[in-house]
Amino acid sequence: MPLRPLVAALALCLALPALADQPAHTPTPSELLAKSKPSEWRRPDPQNLLQMQLPSGRVLIELAPDYAPQHAANIRTLVREHYFDGLAIIRVQDNFVTQWGDPNDDDSGDRSKLKPLGSARKTLPPEYTRATDPKLPWTPLPDGDVYAPQVGFSEGFPAARDPASGQTWLAHCYGMVGVARDVGPETGNGSSLYAVIGQAPRGLDRNLAIAGRVIEGMELLSGLPRGPAPMGFYKDAAQRVPIGSVRLAADLPEAQRARVEVLRTDSATFAALVEAKRNRRDDFYRNPAGKIDLCGIAIPARDLDRRGGH
Amino acid sequence: MPLRPLVAALALCLALPALADQPAHTPTPSELLAKSKPSEWRRPDPQNLLQMQLPSGRVLIELAPDYAPQHAANIRTLVREHYFDGLAIIRVQDNFVTQWGDPNDDDSGDRSKLKPLGSARKTLPPEYTRATDPKLPWTPLPDGDVYAPQVGFSEGFPAARDPASGQTWLAHCYGMVGVARDVGPETGNGSSLYAVIGQAPRGLDRNLAIAGRVIEGMELLSGLPRGPAPMGFYKDAAQRVPIGSVRLAADLPEAQRARVEVLRTDSATFAALVEAKRNRRDDFYRNPAGKIDLCGIAIPARDLDRRGGH
Repeated sequence: MPLRPLVAALALCLALPALADQPAHTPTPSELLAKSKPSEWRRPDPQNLLQMQLPSGRVLIELAPDYAPQHAANIRTLVREHYFDGLAIIRVQDNFVTQWGDPNDDDSGDRSKLKPLGSARKTLPPEYTRATDPKLPWTPLPDGDVYAPQVGFSEGFPAARDPASGQTWLAHCYGMVGVARDVGPETGNGSSLYAVIGQAPRGLDRNLAIAGRVIEGMELLSGLPRGPAPMGFYKDAAQRVPIGSVRLAADLPEAQRARVEVLRTDSATFAALVEAKRNRRDDFYRNPAGKIDLCGIAIPARDLDRRGGH
Repeated sequence: MPLRPLVAALALCLALPALADQPAHTPTPSELLAKSKPSEWRRPDPQNLLQMQLPSGRVLIELAPDYAPQHAANIRTLVREHYFDGLAIIRVQDNFVTQWGDPNDDDSGDRSKLKPLGSARKTLPPEYTRATDPKLPWTPLPDGDVYAPQVGFSEGFPAARDPASGQTWLAHCYGMVGVARDVGPETGNGSSLYAVIGQAPRGLDRNLAIAGRVIEGMELLSGLPRGPAPMGFYKDAAQRVPIGSVRLAADLPEAQRARVEVLRTDSATFAALVEAKRNRRDDFYRNPAGKIDLCGIAIPARDLDRRGGH
């Protein structure tokens, strides 16, 4: 393949030391993951792992308590009291979000029929950003960003920060799980959650709390018929996907806990994946982008109970 | 609503003159579109309008002959000879693309059973970029971009350009329709097409020809179950969505032509929509992003045969 010498030289400057002897062929994600070390993977803390059962299969969500601690705690409370069991996916808006919770919790719903929140709190402080903490991991992405002065990864989540304000926040990338709310900034409590299913709606950053990220089963949320009503709400109960149950892995017997691992975002393999995506060069790709945007990077997870599941 | 004075002042600096007297409440897209003038909308040339009939409804695609003229011409030839009729959606890969064409046109297919291309060409020059032409419309987006030196809109399509190379190209944003190909850069001929259904895979820019954009019915392509095989291919014929027909609007009697309009990307209303998305401020949004990325901007279309369809 005719690699243009200038591009190749630039790529070497940007490449990791381990990749300096890479062939002209950029390794594929599968090749990179096959060479990863066990220590580069982590099991999410079972206290942060939600297992949502849908008729079509299982969705796993990792909570981000360092970024929305009170929301994470409230969601755990809701889950422990089986709040979500029997509720539904109430809304799928194309190129935006899939949202689940109480079907009566929208403008056309009957609010007198809302499921009680039990011992969970009804309002929470708006944990949209947090003070930047040098003790939290931060793997910068040097490619720039339209929305924030700095972007990178922290604890397995795409994030942004602003040195001027001293604040860090999680970014609304594909698969991120946010906390729906009403107009008031304290009205989000975790009883209604959404996952991003389209182009990253980064304008939501710093306006909503992000509770975590879908690490398995995203396609069960994104591959649904879009709702016909405004904002993608389903008009009829029959259109909604029912939620069988949502459980915290920590509350399940070991045999029922998802055995899932997420690639550490501060690992060498993750850095190599980012570089391979930034400068993909093989017989197919003739013009490496040279850049990669924050939300263009998938964070791999693997299910130890499935073969080859990345 | 407590608008922070500094942000409000900055916003006014960035705002269009027509918006300088805007209220603290950012107009919604619906409000802006309701005030648009008829002259701000255009009917796509029927020579550039594809009408694809699926069991679930109609998908409309506008071709971009100024950016991929030979591909547009070849696709018209394929369509006129009813090449796509009876073929199928063969692949839906989550957060990437939905692809349609001949089910035998993949690695596991039986290539001896490929549908003949008729009088269409089997190979085409790689129209991945084109020389920047000052005669083509260009509405710049000043917000910056991770991938390209300049981005903006041209003839209703999101685009990027590089003054250094003198090249312009269409960008792989949500809903853009690209031409699948094999490894060789001239192997794309329009017989297999894909639509972007997730985070914009901008790394494909300048590596594949973009033929156009879905202007109606995108949810019929994006809201499909993801294929279970690698790269989202469907394993079984029964999983594939069959294509009833694809027709060029110009070839249809007037009564069957889609009556659809697209908002001009060089109109004042489009500029106001971009600004409203960049700096949304109302009772819900407390922290306007101040920026909007190229692929975060939806280009409105309206179907004159449907009520209120944006």
